[in-house]
Amino acid sequence: MTTGVRRRMGVEERRQQLIGVALELFSHRSPDEVSIDEIAAAAGISRPLVYHYFPGKQSLYEAALRRAAEDLAHRFSERHEGPLGGRLLRVMRRFFDFVDEHGPGFSALMRGGPAAGTGTTSAVIDGVRQAAYEQIMAHLGVTDPAPRLRLVVRSWVSLAESTALIWLDGREIPRAELELQLVHDFAALVAVPAAYDPDMAAVLERIMRDEPADGPFGDLVGRLVALVPQAPSPAPAARVPQQRA
Amino acid sequence: MTTGVRRRMGVEERRQQLIGVALELFSHRSPDEVSIDEIAAAAGISRPLVYHYFPGKQSLYEAALRRAAEDLAHRFSERHEGPLGGRLLRVMRRFFDFVDEHGPGFSALMRGGPAAGTGTTSAVIDGVRQAAYEQIMAHLGVTDPAPRLRLVVRSWVSLAESTALIWLDGREIPRAELELQLVHDFAALVAVPAAYDPDMAAVLERIMRDEPADGPFGDLVGRLVALVPQAPSPAPAARVPQQRA
Repeated sequence: MTTGVRRRMGVEERRQQLIGVALELFSHRSPDEVSIDEIAAAAGISRPLVYHYFPGKQSLYEAALRRAAEDLAHRFSERHEGPLGGRLLRVMRRFFDFVDEHGPGFSALMRGGPAAGTGTTSAVIDGVRQAAYEQIMAHLGVTDPAPRLRLVVRSWVSLAESTALIWLDGREIPRAELELQLVHDFAALVAVPAAYDPDMAAVLERIMRDEPADGPFGDLVGRLVALVPQAPSPAPAARVPQQRA
Repeated sequence: MTTGVRRRMGVEERRQQLIGVALELFSHRSPDEVSIDEIAAAAGISRPLVYHYFPGKQSLYEAALRRAAEDLAHRFSERHEGPLGGRLLRVMRRFFDFVDEHGPGFSALMRGGPAAGTGTTSAVIDGVRQAAYEQIMAHLGVTDPAPRLRLVVRSWVSLAESTALIWLDGREIPRAELELQLVHDFAALVAVPAAYDPDMAAVLERIMRDEPADGPFGDLVGRLVALVPQAPSPAPAARVPQQRA
């Protein structure tokens, strides 16, 4: 049977099959706990044949990680249509889909266990972060971002990672709530420097201009304003135009 | 001369001296670039003598990391006096002092380079995160935090890390601005779930109750409200009492 399967598959096809099998195993248990024997058994081939395609577990792990990274980066892709809040929410849903599908492997990788920490894995992770960062900047329509905006977007990407990791550790909060919270957090992290920096205030204004009052951002602003008992008279700062209903 | 120094120092004293010398070197260059020979030279002893006290560079690195972690955890310590905004700002100043002093080593460690990624280093880093988390909870006066508050505090600790790392990468934004921004971010990350969850609204209310209008939180709220052109009528949600001037 093993030989039969082997005959039917070409080299690249077999490599791709092994990567898929390994990714499935690495996703559901900490990669350190997955053996080459298990991968061979799940793929229906012998252990030596696995080594024929991949010199060791680390190289198979890295190949699986690259495939997962491509998958994740692909999920950040979102049409440039409609208000930003809705776009980010759809991206966060796909991000949590990914985190849900690859939970233990995602945790093990991001928490820097023995499986992580090589130059290759760090580079793959940084590549995904960079893809996320570039997608956000493209949605903001900013081609030459100032340091403060770069910091906010990078910080938010990092916040999305840490929120997902905390969620995986017990899943105490419904993921839909956290998807929305991260969208809100993005607006909040933009709003904080916008309170002090005119360029960031302009970014916030552009974001809010197209937001409906019942979208994620509009709803948050309405609720937060309701939490403040007495609004001080407006200062002569950059102002967000009234949202469209 | 080497022998003379050796005679004057006891075992523990020598170990502590080596840890201090190594920490200084590991702080200013990526630990992977620091050799045992350099550490020996900086300590004024022979290479074999370094190995007499530490079996290898990794064990010396871990000892240096533990000392740095104790130092950092100590800096989170802040008297429970006065408004929370001011307390957090003082802690953030000491945190950035630490990051400034140990820049390249901090980056290499947190970015998961080859020096990181062992179980020991991960445990030390997690210990510091836990210490920061517990300090914040103590300042909030919360002994049995709900999942949403735990998530916010852990997320903020992670945000402080990532902000510091981004700052180190070029130092494009003055650190004093980022220290204040992180204090503001804390309020913002609490405010987002407070807009939807009564328990979080109660936490926000307790924080804001003692904040002066010209403190970090009061100033931010005033500026953000000024960015909203027309406040909707207050909803029957939990409300933050008016700040004391």
